[in-house]
Amino acid sequence: MPDALDSGDLCPFCPGNEGFTPPPIQQHADASGRWDVRVFHDRAPLFRVEGDLNREPEGMFDRMNAVGAHEIVVETNQHGKTLAEHSPEHIARILEIFRARILDLKQDLRFRYVSVFKDQGLNRPAAQEHGHSQVLAIPVIPALVQTELRWSQFHYQRKERCLYCDILFQESQLSKRIVDESSDFVCLCPYASRFPYEICILPVQHHSSFERDVARDSRLLSLARFLKANLLRVQKISDKLRIVLHTEPNLAAYGQQPDRWKTIHDDYHWHFEIYPELDGETTHFDAETFYYNPVPAEEAALTLRAVELGTESVQPGT
Amino acid sequence: MPDALDSGDLCPFCPGNEGFTPPPIQQHADASGRWDVRVFHDRAPLFRVEGDLNREPEGMFDRMNAVGAHEIVVETNQHGKTLAEHSPEHIARILEIFRARILDLKQDLRFRYVSVFKDQGLNRPAAQEHGHSQVLAIPVIPALVQTELRWSQFHYQRKERCLYCDILFQESQLSKRIVDESSDFVCLCPYASRFPYEICILPVQHHSSFERDVARDSRLLSLARFLKANLLRVQKISDKLRIVLHTEPNLAAYGQQPDRWKTIHDDYHWHFEIYPELDGETTHFDAETFYYNPVPAEEAALTLRAVELGTESVQPGT
Repeated sequence: MPDALDSGDLCPFCPGNEGFTPPPIQQHADASGRWDVRVFHDRAPLFRVEGDLNREPEGMFDRMNAVGAHEIVVETNQHGKTLAEHSPEHIARILEIFRARILDLKQDLRFRYVSVFKDQGLNRPAAQEHGHSQVLAIPVIPALVQTELRWSQFHYQRKERCLYCDILFQESQLSKRIVDESSDFVCLCPYASRFPYEICILPVQHHSSFERDVARDSRLLSLARFLKANLLRVQKISDKLRIVLHTEPNLAAYGQQPDRWKTIHDDYHWHFEIYPELDGETTHFDAETFYYNPVPAEEAALTLRAVELGTESVQPGT
Repeated sequence: MPDALDSGDLCPFCPGNEGFTPPPIQQHADASGRWDVRVFHDRAPLFRVEGDLNREPEGMFDRMNAVGAHEIVVETNQHGKTLAEHSPEHIARILEIFRARILDLKQDLRFRYVSVFKDQGLNRPAAQEHGHSQVLAIPVIPALVQTELRWSQFHYQRKERCLYCDILFQESQLSKRIVDESSDFVCLCPYASRFPYEICILPVQHHSSFERDVARDSRLLSLARFLKANLLRVQKISDKLRIVLHTEPNLAAYGQQPDRWKTIHDDYHWHFEIYPELDGETTHFDAETFYYNPVPAEEAALTLRAVELGTESVQPGT
């Protein structure tokens, strides 16, 4: 197990160490038959699949069981390789597996949201240097997504247009916060972002759901190429980063409240949020509710746009 | 400058190094005439006192100047001493200075909130090991305080009672989340708190404003004793911690919107929030909007209650 030992610790995600992790829920094999993406339940899950939510009061408070799913997507059999270093084809494979996991988990009507996120190189045990993402199926909607849904619905009620489409329209015209554009996707530095060099990747064509939008192989590959190129830009700033997918909630889990989601297909717009982590930068105060960002989005976009990308990353067919 | 050099770096907050910081806005001298608390403007302020807010649109977004004040309260002339290690009398002096700074800054009607917070031992330059707090006067209300204000107003509208008073009533009856109680203050572990061993210190008697409530010397000293005892408890868990004061906004800065604050004196309840930071614990996901706390509040309260305090910390007159 040289990969694992190189890192000074045994890596449970390396080939040969599958016995340290639960059996796969899903996996993909390369041409030689070796797995190159592998999904399994986390061994110490934050949420458990068994049982009922059992919503109940505790005095004036509310409580429910942590019913959900917590899966690990090991993205590669090569220890220490970052997501951006894979071929577009392999990134497309990982995205396809995200999609499959979301669609599968959304069939469980106890789960109101499926969160896919990745912490790359953030101070974790050495074993965690092995590229992986997490998939959490949860009985609530994360606070930031809730806020987005509230504002995008509010915007739609007044304008009959998607808030994110309006932002894309404005940002394309101004161009100063745009990092990259393809015919399918836009990468921008959000106005007044919380974190330095924070970027957001959105589809040009309106769609509320990643898992329904990015379905065809060509679209998966287009997103994979675009994601790779822009992760390579961000990695020039920091190789520690956090990627979070924001997509629509599990509408089927809200049988009793159809009004709430009446316009969601038109008012919400799926996207990736990507946050590099800079060493020694303090960017929040007041216990993470008040943020200070020393790098304006316009300056971050200028820097990220100027990153020289090897041609291999952006050419089709590699 | 032995204190400074001990830490491997020059400490601008140590006696003898006053030339490295701006002149004091306010200071307190000990019996020998030496300063023992010193307040000055931050040399690299997040907010600046000069100029107008200049609220204006940027396309569909909003912008205003970072008008405000950013002050540093050096709490002691002894490098490396934590807040809990001071005598109750000295802590009372520091609290009195917080109060004076808030009252002074609230006279400026451009400032809608004054935030007092302290990061103790959180990975900063060595110079920062010198005990200090920060006072930020800002043209907005921090997000978490806004959320508290919204919910406490909502609760008051339905119940005609303060949300925090109701929580105190319930928690005192249940007692399982109570860490400490005096005749004047309560320390508890908030139900479903975001962070392990998070505590909250509130006055027993309802009051919306720290700066108007904690005015008399006896009350300052009572709070200082209580704060010291409970900081000593938390320091058994971690000497890295964050303290945030939540108090009512600067109502005078809202001349045009009196309705918004109609019941605030009755519906809001000032308090300290204290968050220890545990090494290696990951407690948030999804870019700080989704929290996982492995230590239930009831278990944290049990542990913190059981901490043996030296008698000097709680007896009057020391």
